[in-house]
Amino acid sequence: MSLAAALARLAPALADFPPGHVWLAGAGPGHPGGLTLEVLGALAAAEAVVHDALIDPTVLRACAGAALHDVGKRAGRHSAKQSEINALLIDLARQGKRVLRLKGGDPTLFGRGGEEAAALSAAGIAWRFLPGVTSGLAALSRLGIPATLRGVNQALILATGHGVEAGPDWAALAATGQPLVIYMGMANLARIAEALIAGGLAAETPAAVIVSASLPGERFLAAPLGRLAGAARAAGLGAPGIIAIGEIVARREALRAAARAAASEAA
Amino acid sequence: MSLAAALARLAPALADFPPGHVWLAGAGPGHPGGLTLEVLGALAAAEAVVHDALIDPTVLRACAGAALHDVGKRAGRHSAKQSEINALLIDLARQGKRVLRLKGGDPTLFGRGGEEAAALSAAGIAWRFLPGVTSGLAALSRLGIPATLRGVNQALILATGHGVEAGPDWAALAATGQPLVIYMGMANLARIAEALIAGGLAAETPAAVIVSASLPGERFLAAPLGRLAGAARAAGLGAPGIIAIGEIVARREALRAAARAAASEAA
Repeated sequence: MSLAAALARLAPALADFPPGHVWLAGAGPGHPGGLTLEVLGALAAAEAVVHDALIDPTVLRACAGAALHDVGKRAGRHSAKQSEINALLIDLARQGKRVLRLKGGDPTLFGRGGEEAAALSAAGIAWRFLPGVTSGLAALSRLGIPATLRGVNQALILATGHGVEAGPDWAALAATGQPLVIYMGMANLARIAEALIAGGLAAETPAAVIVSASLPGERFLAAPLGRLAGAARAAGLGAPGIIAIGEIVARREALRAAARAAASEAA
Repeated sequence: MSLAAALARLAPALADFPPGHVWLAGAGPGHPGGLTLEVLGALAAAEAVVHDALIDPTVLRACAGAALHDVGKRAGRHSAKQSEINALLIDLARQGKRVLRLKGGDPTLFGRGGEEAAALSAAGIAWRFLPGVTSGLAALSRLGIPATLRGVNQALILATGHGVEAGPDWAALAATGQPLVIYMGMANLARIAEALIAGGLAAETPAAVIVSASLPGERFLAAPLGRLAGAARAAGLGAPGIIAIGEIVARREALRAAARAAASEAA
């Protein structure tokens, strides 16, 4: 079946985007394949799209009819303040537009979707969240790292590394024994690794940095936790990136080794 | 722009599905709108689809050309054993088919995608993971619960409640002070709540059960952690369901109250 025909069969299940509403949506990890159908539908129907700079410009091809408002950070320019973004969303909705607020990953996981929802509710504007594939899980999948494995982990902790002091209690996270996926932690990588090791994680715990998963600049670097920050610095890897820590990370290489062994046996 | 035109603009960015490969994909929370474009493309191109019972049948309309293999649990029937599923995937791939293994949510988060990948690697069969919107984050979004809020939480813990003794260290998770989203925990809800409270979480911690988010049978029940299991039992809510615990859960009602206040002020 063609892709268009497949879409046509599912399209009737998509919700209508009412004028004057704001949809706070996640675009997934960046590449168009990670967009959900409901977000594609929202892009096609939107009259205004308020997006972050992290959005792959390819994704925005799906909304040729909408006015684009880039409120994200770019080199040499500060991003719009949160209060300005809130005011813009309210203003566009009051003009009766269908307003799509598009963020990378998921809109409410480290994405301030909750703050925008609060501003919209207070202004009496109808909104909803449209979830997206969160960048951390997408990065694991793309690199062939299972998020959970029976007998290995029973939880996965998604944490922000932005602002170490204001961040989570790293020692308490380490004490759970569960793997960590850390967003926005590249600038503080050395201090986070130190805090986790001080909290009881072995310096030899498998760990990795994943940059731009699924995008042209994709990079992957694995190193034990105690040496990850140095290795990332030496390799020139900086923000934005996803940090993965735990036994699951080592499974990538195990899977690749098994595939190589099978291939050489067949040859 | 029409939905079809929007898709046509993004379709060239989707990867080709090579014959003899197995794609281990997540269908998202169940309704067609939660499907990603790359999974839609895989459904349209697949010659064999091996799916769980949790998949909304509507989603399968997108693969009229493929042989469907239902390996999930159904009333009165056991699901296929994992070893049988692995063997089926290998057999179909060796026939040169494009094989799509479709799971609810994300394929590797509590989804055994990692085990299937290991079996495929050992058999010398090429595979990849296609991430999906994980059911826990989708349930939060659908119900208007932000996954994170500045000043409230700096992490989100996704945990399985399947098998309490073999499960995570609930006291250690409680000690992190971060909210929890628990998958497959409905059957053990009373014991999980007890373990978390014994580990230090207040019995008054906001909590909720979310069943069939975005689907026709959707249910939402909020109650303090100490009373959640009893309330769920009284309401007849059972598996499958997502359990959410933490201050973020209370934000749903706060957002709704703000919207009501704004509406009554405008009236």
